Amino acid sequence: MSHSLLFTPGPLSTSLTVKQAMLEDMGSRDHAFVKAVKEIREDLLLLAHAPKEEGYECVIIQGSGTFGVESVISSVVGENDKLLVLVNGAYGERIVKMAKIHKLAHDVLRFEEDAIVDPGDVDSYLAQHKDITHVACIHSETTTGLFNPIQAIGAVCKEHNKIFIVDAMSSFGGVTMDMVTMNIDFLVSSSNKCIEGVPGFAFALCKKKELEKAKGQARSLSLDLYEQWAGLEANGQFRFTPPTLSIMAFKQAMKELEEEGGIAAREQRYKTNKKILDEGMHLMGFQQYLKPGIQGHIITSFLYPSSPDFKFDRFYEKLNQRGFVIYPGKLSKTDAFRIGNIGQIFPDDVRALLKAIKEVMHEEGVAV
Amino acid sequence: MSHSLLFTPGPLSTSLTVKQAMLEDMGSRDHAFVKAVKEIREDLLLLAHAPKEEGYECVIIQGSGTFGVESVISSVVGENDKLLVLVNGAYGERIVKMAKIHKLAHDVLRFEEDAIVDPGDVDSYLAQHKDITHVACIHSETTTGLFNPIQAIGAVCKEHNKIFIVDAMSSFGGVTMDMVTMNIDFLVSSSNKCIEGVPGFAFALCKKKELEKAKGQARSLSLDLYEQWAGLEANGQFRFTPPTLSIMAFKQAMKELEEEGGIAAREQRYKTNKKILDEGMHLMGFQQYLKPGIQGHIITSFLYPSSPDFKFDRFYEKLNQRGFVIYPGKLSKTDAFRIGNIGQIFPDDVRALLKAIKEVMHEEGVAV
Repeated sequence: MSHSLLFTPGPLSTSLTVKQAMLEDMGSRDHAFVKAVKEIREDLLLLAHAPKEEGYECVIIQGSGTFGVESVISSVVGENDKLLVLVNGAYGERIVKMAKIHKLAHDVLRFEEDAIVDPGDVDSYLAQHKDITHVACIHSETTTGLFNPIQAIGAVCKEHNKIFIVDAMSSFGGVTMDMVTMNIDFLVSSSNKCIEGVPGFAFALCKKKELEKAKGQARSLSLDLYEQWAGLEANGQFRFTPPTLSIMAFKQAMKELEEEGGIAAREQRYKTNKKILDEGMHLMGFQQYLKPGIQGHIITSFLYPSSPDFKFDRFYEKLNQRGFVIYPGKLSKTDAFRIGNIGQIFPDDVRALLKAIKEVMHEEGVAV
Repeated sequence: MSHSLLFTPGPLSTSLTVKQAMLEDMGSRDHAFVKAVKEIREDLLLLAHAPKEEGYECVIIQGSGTFGVESVISSVVGENDKLLVLVNGAYGERIVKMAKIHKLAHDVLRFEEDAIVDPGDVDSYLAQHKDITHVACIHSETTTGLFNPIQAIGAVCKEHNKIFIVDAMSSFGGVTMDMVTMNIDFLVSSSNKCIEGVPGFAFALCKKKELEKAKGQARSLSLDLYEQWAGLEANGQFRFTPPTLSIMAFKQAMKELEEEGGIAAREQRYKTNKKILDEGMHLMGFQQYLKPGIQGHIITSFLYPSSPDFKFDRFYEKLNQRGFVIYPGKLSKTDAFRIGNIGQIFPDDVRALLKAIKEVMHEEGVAV
């Protein structure tokens, strides 16, 4: 069995013990499983500093992270509401696509791909467009790797009394976040990101008061956020077959997150990984796409070397053969590749990747 | 680690080797994974005797089986189409619910829960309602355990030139089915049923000519059947993060299905399980809800014993403590529980369950 390390935005490298938690069959309506789901839902809220007692709820949604985002977007924006989507990358554009498909009244405020969403611009826009009721923004734009200033945008939303929806897919669990002080009403992430579980489901952390308003508003059966929550609350069971084993793996992942020292410790590990990656890549002459000030510590876009001898497919394949899986770029106008530093990746793994990159560049005769 | 046997309609008991296939992390855009997905998609079509070369396509959809059914229903029934839903249980009703939510033009032809969908009635209905374009039916109605006569209904659909959609969730892989001779245009099932994989995704086997008509018709982003297919065809990758490890487990499950002797051998094992279950339960005095002629070999509804000492919760719990997970009933008017006999369940397992039931009935002082 080969053991590749995944330097991607997810699915990620996970611990063996997380994967081993999937070795026992589990009935989806059985007590042991129902108990695990209950604990996961409560503990996720605690990670966001938004406990049930303070009026927050966790809804687990089968499928990928996008399924979770679409569940929220297509359930909470009502017939008479209007959504403002803040966009500076492919994941923001994806929310616009959802708004179009579901025929939601919506506006889009676009920023350059290499710039953050400017809270001042959002403030002006909301001041001029009183009909907006909901604002959606990506936290960690995986397209580039930048972090949008969610705290400041949340403050603007609060000022204007808007419902704030945050796609924190690739950051939640790897960045300290407080839904209450950040004024986030809906936060979406997935099982296979910084909590370091395996893929299979998304979850939405929701302000209960706002979640309740979604009753009867959903545009599909499977992605009905309110009914999914109501089902889980009624008897602890899912309306439709859940990914039982992915959920058991996630429970183990939550335990291991706690053992590591919680989100603060994990954030520190990821930042250390990122620092080693940055320094090593810089030494080899690679340039980053983003300015350091707006770059997050989850994933980094590196520009292709200018040498005509650099062929990404070969570079990718040769790293792959050495057991390192990196990620292609997704920029709209520039050639770049991406390296993530989240998951069960430790400083020595990053050093090993850097060594492999050096070897491959040498083999390929590419001067960076 | 306790090892419960799941006598349910799924998630099911799976082999250890299927679960062990999830012990290696897998990048969702990586070659090894893309290759596995391609092979699974091709092999599923072969199981339905509907190869790619003859104009059939396989689309994998993240989420539960219901996500797969909703993907088909909400993608293939167009603005000017009309769907006829054939209903004799909760899963048929679920399709009606989807039709309502998506505001599809639709009619419903209902039958009693303990009767099959009558092909003659369908024939008359279609003769009188020329505006119907699509017909949807459940094959194995897990509500009761009956098998609807898909072959005969398919012939009627062909006669009237209708698109035929079959929810074969709990039967595909455990019953010989031929999409071509059965005139099925869309067949939906899931990873955690008779192929004996773990939960995480659904799949739709589609007549390509009809699938292509779904372009631009979907009512959601995540459940867009056409785009999901187009994405897989373009580069072998999923549009959105797939449940990588569930898919690797499924690949192993497909291998083990072949090793068992294919669907014919598996069908025989399930039928043997069912026969042993029937005889043992009959000997103890339990009565089945359905008449034998329409009962399938997947799952059986047993009426509660008339004794006032029978408490299902205690019965369930005591079997659970002995390592046997059975399933509650879902009948609309009658108290019953269900026992499935699919998954990694063998004759000796059924005998062990029967012994445990006998013990529990004795302990509880219930004469059946």
